[in-house]
Amino acid sequence: MPELDQQLLDDITLGATVLGSGGGGDPYVGMLLARAAIAEHGPVDLVALADIPDDAHIAFLAAVGAPGVLIEKIPRPADGVAALEMLEKHLGRPFTHVAPIEAGGFNAVTPIAAAAAKGIPVVDADGMGRAFPYLDMVTPTLYDGKSTPMSLADEHGNRLVVECATNAWSEAMARAGTVASGGVMYFASYPMSGAQAKAWLIEAPLMRAARLGATLRAARAEKADPVAALLAEHGGARVIEGRIAGIERRTEGGFNFGEATIEGLGADRGRTMSLLFQNEYLVAREGDDAVLTTPDIIMTMEAETGEPIPAEELRYGFRVVVVGLPCDERWHTEHGLRLTGPRRFGYDIDAVRAATSATNGESAEGN
Amino acid sequence: MPELDQQLLDDITLGATVLGSGGGGDPYVGMLLARAAIAEHGPVDLVALADIPDDAHIAFLAAVGAPGVLIEKIPRPADGVAALEMLEKHLGRPFTHVAPIEAGGFNAVTPIAAAAAKGIPVVDADGMGRAFPYLDMVTPTLYDGKSTPMSLADEHGNRLVVECATNAWSEAMARAGTVASGGVMYFASYPMSGAQAKAWLIEAPLMRAARLGATLRAARAEKADPVAALLAEHGGARVIEGRIAGIERRTEGGFNFGEATIEGLGADRGRTMSLLFQNEYLVAREGDDAVLTTPDIIMTMEAETGEPIPAEELRYGFRVVVVGLPCDERWHTEHGLRLTGPRRFGYDIDAVRAATSATNGESAEGN
Repeated sequence: MPELDQQLLDDITLGATVLGSGGGGDPYVGMLLARAAIAEHGPVDLVALADIPDDAHIAFLAAVGAPGVLIEKIPRPADGVAALEMLEKHLGRPFTHVAPIEAGGFNAVTPIAAAAAKGIPVVDADGMGRAFPYLDMVTPTLYDGKSTPMSLADEHGNRLVVECATNAWSEAMARAGTVASGGVMYFASYPMSGAQAKAWLIEAPLMRAARLGATLRAARAEKADPVAALLAEHGGARVIEGRIAGIERRTEGGFNFGEATIEGLGADRGRTMSLLFQNEYLVAREGDDAVLTTPDIIMTMEAETGEPIPAEELRYGFRVVVVGLPCDERWHTEHGLRLTGPRRFGYDIDAVRAATSATNGESAEGN
Repeated sequence: MPELDQQLLDDITLGATVLGSGGGGDPYVGMLLARAAIAEHGPVDLVALADIPDDAHIAFLAAVGAPGVLIEKIPRPADGVAALEMLEKHLGRPFTHVAPIEAGGFNAVTPIAAAAAKGIPVVDADGMGRAFPYLDMVTPTLYDGKSTPMSLADEHGNRLVVECATNAWSEAMARAGTVASGGVMYFASYPMSGAQAKAWLIEAPLMRAARLGATLRAARAEKADPVAALLAEHGGARVIEGRIAGIERRTEGGFNFGEATIEGLGADRGRTMSLLFQNEYLVAREGDDAVLTTPDIIMTMEAETGEPIPAEELRYGFRVVVVGLPCDERWHTEHGLRLTGPRRFGYDIDAVRAATSATNGESAEGN
């Protein structure tokens, strides 16, 4: 694995914003925290999933909260360490590694600062391969992996240990505690062995993010079209290019809900598309037809620069390209779609994949 | 101490409803649970505060939730035991006794069933001497006693351990978890030594409840006026007699809020009084004047039978007597009023005591 230097951190940060599918919180702040922690505590080892021992003891370390709150109330790495230590005390056993729960947004880099402070490595493996709004929407859930015991910590000194019968219950409990705390808490969850991590997790999401980021960086340097470069090198689909003609938002139960309307420009003139989001973009809709849906990644990028624009930063008048990128194939299984497909979010439609959406808009799955 | 037989349980249940100040949930259900647990596991020792050893290890055991939900979703004593055992595991030390957190309503008898199942005694001491809606409104808070580590458990298998810097924070966290759980959880909190319990707690609230209940029972048997008997034997004030002319309710954040309007009858004809409640009755108001307020106990009783009627059971047309009973004197100190006086609930008025309210309605405290 390459060393986790500033260049790599910058590329991961840029790519994690793309994988955030419009949500997950701004990883830029997480990158600054990681950089400061590395400067203070020394370098962090990034370890490939295949290289961890079977008897490793791993937890996801992440922040939970609405992205809009994450901007205003930055989680402190010390609270991440506190969450890990609370869970270690409860389990009576230290963690040997931490891993990001999601590859998109803030939490792609969240574990790095805490790992630096604790002096343990970060595994390049995650449970989403993108960002999702619920803590149970992770590949371990597909293998009956348990999210609990889970711990949460915040800057007020609140510390929670949660044990639940299901991952959906722990999601509800963590969310409730986080809303009570003021909107953001660090949490450590899904304690697992190295052998379990190898069977359950998505491999190398940080390296995927880094490659995405490097492509965008190189295209900008060469004055090339960054979105075209991204799609050429990483697959996926161009959905529409246009201008933000309207955006509605509401925060409810710790989530950012909303809808952005895009009016097509250039070749897309005359088309109108709606992007529906709950933290992440979930459905791109044209008239009555879904043209791209969760679990595939939907992202808005600034048309000129290719800068990925999360839903929370989208403003009236922005000129954007909407792109679709494929998610981990496990999300397109029956169990995967039950957990992360459109119906899980209340949309009575079949999932539409990114790979087909640009060509014919056909439904790819019958979930 | 007398044996905790059915007669005593019945009297405690009736008296605890009076001490509930209109809230605290119906202790009748708690009594049934206590009776069933005693039948299954054998008798429970009720121990006077003065008789416990200084090195005893005690926790409050109680249910948290809106009273209206308590009626629909009865907490299972097994969940009370689960909460105690979760906290014992966290502290690495078993509890020798449990105590009720409040003397009013459901939680006056909540510990009995769990104590029967665990085979440990109940201390006749509590933290409120009545019922209050918030978990930090207990006498240990006046002595800087910590509510945490606290544990919570429900019938879905959810188990929480909470550590917080302040009792107000643990109240917020427990409330949030309880709302997420569906409205009711058992919790074990304020772990304390026997020496601390002796310094902090209110003595013999269950015996006070039992004496109140016995007075009402005897008056009914003798066809005497039960409210008159209650006031003659236990002090307090008759505030108004009248008919419920209106009642408004709303459930919000796990609390029952509302206002009952009483139109005077008999000697009180022509008077109109409002009772404002948040689970418990907090303020009795006549025009612009508060005539009786928290922290003293405000209770509505059925005029004929003296049956105490909690706020959640009050209905249009009921003929009631409103009575005021004195609370523990510590609630009338400056710190006590800051914690439980009208201003804590958002009413910008001084506390009005029960003893003076019937005679002249004067403000008794400048909090």
